Amino acid sequence: MLVDGVPYRTIRVGDDGWSVEVIDQRRLPHEFRLVRLTAVEEAAAAIRDMTVRGAPLIGATAAYGLALAARRDPGVEALERAAALLRATRPTAVNLAWALDDMMARLRNTARGERAAAAYRRAAEICEEDVATNRAIADHGLALLREILREKGGGGPINVLTHCNAGWLATVDWGTALAPVYRAHDAGLPVHVWVDETRPRNQGALTAWELARHGVDHTVVVDNAGGHLMQRGRVDLCLVGTDRTTATGDVCNKIGTYLKALAARDNGVPFYVALPGTTIDWSAADGLRDIPIEERGADEVAAVGGRLDSGELARVSPYPEGTAVANPAFDVTPARLVTGVITERGVAPATREGLLGLYPERR
Amino acid sequence: MLVDGVPYRTIRVGDDGWSVEVIDQRRLPHEFRLVRLTAVEEAAAAIRDMTVRGAPLIGATAAYGLALAARRDPGVEALERAAALLRATRPTAVNLAWALDDMMARLRNTARGERAAAAYRRAAEICEEDVATNRAIADHGLALLREILREKGGGGPINVLTHCNAGWLATVDWGTALAPVYRAHDAGLPVHVWVDETRPRNQGALTAWELARHGVDHTVVVDNAGGHLMQRGRVDLCLVGTDRTTATGDVCNKIGTYLKALAARDNGVPFYVALPGTTIDWSAADGLRDIPIEERGADEVAAVGGRLDSGELARVSPYPEGTAVANPAFDVTPARLVTGVITERGVAPATREGLLGLYPERR
Repeated sequence: MLVDGVPYRTIRVGDDGWSVEVIDQRRLPHEFRLVRLTAVEEAAAAIRDMTVRGAPLIGATAAYGLALAARRDPGVEALERAAALLRATRPTAVNLAWALDDMMARLRNTARGERAAAAYRRAAEICEEDVATNRAIADHGLALLREILREKGGGGPINVLTHCNAGWLATVDWGTALAPVYRAHDAGLPVHVWVDETRPRNQGALTAWELARHGVDHTVVVDNAGGHLMQRGRVDLCLVGTDRTTATGDVCNKIGTYLKALAARDNGVPFYVALPGTTIDWSAADGLRDIPIEERGADEVAAVGGRLDSGELARVSPYPEGTAVANPAFDVTPARLVTGVITERGVAPATREGLLGLYPERR
Repeated sequence: MLVDGVPYRTIRVGDDGWSVEVIDQRRLPHEFRLVRLTAVEEAAAAIRDMTVRGAPLIGATAAYGLALAARRDPGVEALERAAALLRATRPTAVNLAWALDDMMARLRNTARGERAAAAYRRAAEICEEDVATNRAIADHGLALLREILREKGGGGPINVLTHCNAGWLATVDWGTALAPVYRAHDAGLPVHVWVDETRPRNQGALTAWELARHGVDHTVVVDNAGGHLMQRGRVDLCLVGTDRTTATGDVCNKIGTYLKALAARDNGVPFYVALPGTTIDWSAADGLRDIPIEERGADEVAAVGGRLDSGELARVSPYPEGTAVANPAFDVTPARLVTGVITERGVAPATREGLLGLYPERR
């Protein structure tokens, strides 16, 4: 996508042909800064500290992390250590495990001397596949948005509520939940996005930044506001991403998603989840039981980062010193609250049958 | 309640016998500072800019605001102008209108020369009534908490989730939703409170500060976390306050309350609303239709206040400059989601019959 007229992806191989360049998302929306990753340890740290975030981008970064590891030591033991290091960074997003498993299966079957090149090649492929997947999600989502506009009698705008950032910053390009929004905007449909600020990390600021770069009309609201907006008929659909979806359609996503799904159900608002097939965990049948929920550090809640009047970046704590804080990072939205999923293969109900209809090879 | 061992109320007449002293709640939890109000305009400003907040305290401040006005000019016209000024400060809390109507009805029937003294006397009475009301709510709530502890098999703690601040800072003393918590804690029951941070103004920081002063175990969570906690069985009841309740039991409270009520219903968690009878709007039958929802300034969302590492207070903006923001301050929780109300007269279902059972004089 464009940043001040320049096309960017969230991850790419640097001009040196081997280091990996990513956008430091901790500094957005205030500063656009690229960071160079030169070793698997740096890739792991970038995932852990959320320099990069978003399930698809975590997967792509892990793939390049293994490539960096293979360049240093292509031995299977070293690669396995590298994969374990990357795997341990964050527990919830399944794309991470998927990318590592995919890479390791291929590298084990590759001659030692060719592993580094093969790893870079496969990582690049994973990135291209992500972009193609998201473009397909955009097309399927566009059809859905057109239908909603038609049902509204053609009068715009289509009011989309989204939670967290499932835009291009969360992927290699285009995004998942925001891909249909960009596609609809480009196709001339009137779209307005309610952007949940998404505490504790305020990823809504990333979403607002992205949408502003692309010229999409949007309004930031606190996470508390969505129910009220839906009660008043001001939301036409909810559209979110996911970090892991069970084979039965339970959706694990940024904490708070479940509350919006409840409000959508209570007010008859469609609730859709945009997801690449790689975020489906076919081994999981019960989201509450089978998906590990990451508990992150208290400082994410206890301190809020932003721009001072002076323009300087700083963190303030709204809480008394020593306040106890809990910080679960994700929640599970049961499939019964999900109107449908939008994948690269089309739209389907959030049920085992619905998902198997799109991915019959999993039967 | 005690602040560092010293008993305080949120509002009182100063040592000079006429000015009105309030706690500047915009500076809490970082600084405990008293402010002196010396004219009705200052009282109105204190309500508007949320130096004081919380439906019962707004009512008490408005009453003293009229007393300040009567001291300057006890003429009926001047008093009516003062009442109009106070009434226009905030639209949602009904205690404000109640206190002003009550004061004006009495002052109109009082000889001009006695109005100032009568106004101070009635304002003091309103404060005492608020304290007595909240102590009664505490007692009725205690019985409820005992019952929940018994149902849990006696093993503590009782996990209460609360939203916003309905503690002593929101009232003259004791609080509404937190009154039963303090009472239970004092009675030796094991209580733990999940404190919603309550964006945009982070009134959760006030709740955490209050609870810490009183030694009540608590944990701050983002507003997004409550659904997840309820899904995992970590909340025994939700307990919130209200700014206005309809005669049919619809509850208007700080934005986001409705989302917690939905999650409570979805997980079989009791959802109770603590309310003084003065917050019931007997003229309102449909919360969504009849209660005006205040839209507050964008800067409450766009800037977050707190303490820098240096200890200095500052505000940071997590959002790109010029980001569009909407800031509805309240939402309506339909009566069907409310397990019951706790008033000074006891516990009842959130229905017209339930409320009339407690307030038969309204039949």
